[in-house]
Amino acid sequence: MLKVGVGSEVRIGVVDGPVGTATVTSLGEGRVTLQCALEVSVPPRPRVDILLALPRPKVMRRLWAPLAELGVGQIILTNAEKVERDYFDTHILREEGYLPLLMTGLQQARDTHLPRVSIHKRFKVLIEDDLPALFPEGRRLIAHPDSTATIAGALGAVGPDERVLIAVGPEGGWNVFELDMLRAHGFEHVSMGPRTLTTTTACIALLALVHSATYH
Amino acid sequence: MLKVGVGSEVRIGVVDGPVGTATVTSLGEGRVTLQCALEVSVPPRPRVDILLALPRPKVMRRLWAPLAELGVGQIILTNAEKVERDYFDTHILREEGYLPLLMTGLQQARDTHLPRVSIHKRFKVLIEDDLPALFPEGRRLIAHPDSTATIAGALGAVGPDERVLIAVGPEGGWNVFELDMLRAHGFEHVSMGPRTLTTTTACIALLALVHSATYH
Repeated sequence: MLKVGVGSEVRIGVVDGPVGTATVTSLGEGRVTLQCALEVSVPPRPRVDILLALPRPKVMRRLWAPLAELGVGQIILTNAEKVERDYFDTHILREEGYLPLLMTGLQQARDTHLPRVSIHKRFKVLIEDDLPALFPEGRRLIAHPDSTATIAGALGAVGPDERVLIAVGPEGGWNVFELDMLRAHGFEHVSMGPRTLTTTTACIALLALVHSATYH
Repeated sequence: MLKVGVGSEVRIGVVDGPVGTATVTSLGEGRVTLQCALEVSVPPRPRVDILLALPRPKVMRRLWAPLAELGVGQIILTNAEKVERDYFDTHILREEGYLPLLMTGLQQARDTHLPRVSIHKRFKVLIEDDLPALFPEGRRLIAHPDSTATIAGALGAVGPDERVLIAVGPEGGWNVFELDMLRAHGFEHVSMGPRTLTTTTACIALLALVHSATYH
């Protein structure tokens, strides 16, 4: 909770707009009045998007904030063979469930770019029909333990404005059909080494590596 | 829970020793007999150590498993000005509290190297007196948002056997005295970019970047 009174300064940010500071000019009756000073420039939109096989609700609930904290332009959640159908029936996939968690992550990182979220119950339809509109141009990577390519290596020649989409599979892995379809749609295999990671650790580690490789 | 019966194969690992497979030869009365086949080679010990200002107990409890999962040789927990003293009075800092969580992380990563853990209530004594024995040789890094050096850049010339120790501050940051003392003891400043991260996200992201920069 913010401990503020009249005259306190607080950091503010406009969703998808600039950050700034505000001074509290009045308080009370469930209402706060602020005098706002916004910066002229807007923080750059994160260049990285994530395509994630939907993890179980408990894991997904804890993942929203770190995803926004590390910075992603969009979060594309998908079904896969090893995703259980009832994972989709959770409060945490409704906007009123995840929006406060994304905002927590943005506030932590002092960012204002709310990740766009889309949820896809049919993997094949997503990859074949919807992905060209969601991610029209840029590099597509898929984390796969058998690959010998590193993320830094794969992104060595990435352009300064090029976007990157990283796909993360379910804890049991993508099946052969899914891997083939992703590869046929331009996803290059990259690896983080031999260790098998949980979804949460893998997402944070991958986003850190992709950000680092695209941060010029 | 493992669903096993007589004849089932399970993956096993000996702490600080090899991994392998075992066949269940008998079950019952709270006792399981295994016939074990261990690999000859032992997985390499992670080359990365972490020095972490003790976070609050709820955060620390959730951090043990990912630390072991990503792989650390040792976990050095320290006091700092912005660490509250009562953070040290928690079950989660006793071996019976954290050992099962470290084991969960090792099992996830199929590693056997149990991180060594030490807990230090006096920052100055740790850095001046204890650190030479805990981390006698190798590169010392400290994550600091004001630095312009990247982790990959700082570790560009790291030797194949050289160890790396990465220091992560409290959520409120190290104070000037602590930063000066760390710098005087060889910690080079590195940054992950302008975003302020929570302790958990920062630890996972930093370990991923250090592992990636030292993985030859």
